[in-house]
Amino acid sequence: MSQLFSYQHLFEFSKAVFLKIGCSEDDAMLATKVLLSADLRGIDSHGVARLSGYVRLWDVKRINASPQINILYQTPSTATVDGDSGLGLVVAPKAMQIAIDKAKNVGTGWVSVQNSNHFGIAGYHAMMALEHDMIGICMTNASPLVAPTFSIERLLGTNPLCVAVPAGSQPAFVADMATTTAANGKLEILQRKNDIAPLGWIQNKDGKPSTDPHELKTGGALLPLGGDREHGSHKGYALSAVVDIFSAVLSGANYGPWVPPFPAYVPMPVDMPGKGIGHFFGAMRIDAFRPAEEFKQHMDNWINRFRSAKTAEGFDRVLIPGDPEREMEKVRREKGIPLLVPVINDLLLLAKKFEIEFNKKSS
Amino acid sequence: MSQLFSYQHLFEFSKAVFLKIGCSEDDAMLATKVLLSADLRGIDSHGVARLSGYVRLWDVKRINASPQINILYQTPSTATVDGDSGLGLVVAPKAMQIAIDKAKNVGTGWVSVQNSNHFGIAGYHAMMALEHDMIGICMTNASPLVAPTFSIERLLGTNPLCVAVPAGSQPAFVADMATTTAANGKLEILQRKNDIAPLGWIQNKDGKPSTDPHELKTGGALLPLGGDREHGSHKGYALSAVVDIFSAVLSGANYGPWVPPFPAYVPMPVDMPGKGIGHFFGAMRIDAFRPAEEFKQHMDNWINRFRSAKTAEGFDRVLIPGDPEREMEKVRREKGIPLLVPVINDLLLLAKKFEIEFNKKSS
Repeated sequence: MSQLFSYQHLFEFSKAVFLKIGCSEDDAMLATKVLLSADLRGIDSHGVARLSGYVRLWDVKRINASPQINILYQTPSTATVDGDSGLGLVVAPKAMQIAIDKAKNVGTGWVSVQNSNHFGIAGYHAMMALEHDMIGICMTNASPLVAPTFSIERLLGTNPLCVAVPAGSQPAFVADMATTTAANGKLEILQRKNDIAPLGWIQNKDGKPSTDPHELKTGGALLPLGGDREHGSHKGYALSAVVDIFSAVLSGANYGPWVPPFPAYVPMPVDMPGKGIGHFFGAMRIDAFRPAEEFKQHMDNWINRFRSAKTAEGFDRVLIPGDPEREMEKVRREKGIPLLVPVINDLLLLAKKFEIEFNKKSS
Repeated sequence: MSQLFSYQHLFEFSKAVFLKIGCSEDDAMLATKVLLSADLRGIDSHGVARLSGYVRLWDVKRINASPQINILYQTPSTATVDGDSGLGLVVAPKAMQIAIDKAKNVGTGWVSVQNSNHFGIAGYHAMMALEHDMIGICMTNASPLVAPTFSIERLLGTNPLCVAVPAGSQPAFVADMATTTAANGKLEILQRKNDIAPLGWIQNKDGKPSTDPHELKTGGALLPLGGDREHGSHKGYALSAVVDIFSAVLSGANYGPWVPPFPAYVPMPVDMPGKGIGHFFGAMRIDAFRPAEEFKQHMDNWINRFRSAKTAEGFDRVLIPGDPEREMEKVRREKGIPLLVPVINDLLLLAKKFEIEFNKKSS
């Protein structure tokens, strides 16, 4: 059961919550924009559904609402940023901006971030590059839910990565993906429906294939993209590892099994080797490689060719990465954002806690 | 049936062949080193087994043995390189060297290459960064064998990517992988054995799952990592697309279905939008992000933790990307490189063509 809410109403409410926990006007605005970009794009697990989770992290003092974001090391094309335990929703776009500024100067910019928190969807940050005629890259590590190939231990997060590439008359190419077979959000949907998961998504505590979406509660794990060795799970594992290394070993954040959990009630790992969670951002100026107009014409050609590819029986069309999210955004801006009853109840509790109005009948 | 040959003998023979087609002493040496790194690391499909293929490309004037490699555009952190139809085995390490030199100056270096040919294994080039305490990145597009999700057309190559990360007392982390469920070389092994392929590797001409490794000869296709939509093939498709875009749309090489085929007898695509095939290289100085020694200690910690992960029943240990290839190299340097009879016969034909000695009993 879900109910529709207007973007504007959810925006005002979320911003009010961020102000209540002590964010500045600018940071509250930014955090809200990043958070709600997930709801608009249809990645419901990363939008307002997480707002109360951020507040609980602030409750236990794991989120600093007025961080002093600081560059620890830098060269003309790189920086390492200390997020000062800020909301990832605020730290990430500021770090991405540093990457973009460096790209303006020397062609590309690369920023690794320590001491941050969950940053919403990777897509938002990578897509910041597009308006500058740059390719945007974004990745983050996350708390361990994924077992490397052959293992029964959860040592990696779903560690998403996003690459956003500008085109000309075509919309941008935006590949935004978890490095697992299926994102955790998809598993959560199955849990709510009490449905079974396809083989290849999860394993049980003994490392055997399982279709039970509740397996993670009893020691099971999500599987790296590929699912099993025969289907290339060692590649998904390697990709997830690269995201972890770039985001955290490079920056001085926690990595592997030591990445702090998002739920505030889950105990922190012991002997943590770094600070907070880590992200990695890149920006590459197109005209650092070839004239931007020329590139965009060829991107249009690339996209048109793939879009017009012959389909297998039963499928309408070949999608370009980013198509589903862009189409979803169009619908949701117009018709509203559907929220499930548990999410609405969560927001009502926040409304009560902070004495803010939340209109259940907003849409 | 295979027979062992010493690295030294294969080196001398391959180098003599490259000299015969007109490579300079330095280029012949470099091409041989790159080519044989595949045989040493156990990626047999990319080593001397391909030597006659390179010669056939030279025969039909698709390879220029004395290329003038030229920078078309550059910024402090980027360059676009014209490979002048040279051997990828020569163009690629030279382009990677440009990336490394730029990283020395401004922290990172990124090089996109047009007008090149097959460059051997991605791992060789990415690993060039390691001795400089840099992370190395390498990718290339390849001729179309792979169908995007929902399609029956082959629009992408197996488009490999490699990330090499230095460690301290541990060997380097080296993830070198095709963006398909299985590399084409693995399919070739099944073809030779007349064995069946696991479901998820290939589809037939109608886009239906198939286990017949000969399917590509009748319009079938390799599948992107993930295999099908339910198992995340749209992610493998997106990764392969990113490799294609970085390697070719950025550089001005051919992309998608227009990438020239490796076998010289296969007709060239019509209406090609660029020049040759494309590669992309990156080098990131570790100390552009944090002190190198600190990073390497944490990489050792990362590697040790993953290496000691609890395994599922039936598995000895969790591997670190690069372990299998490094262990293979140790064995093959000592005991020799096994070549199959058809490969030996190919080399004997080359020996005859160029009047060079090839000792069948070398090992």
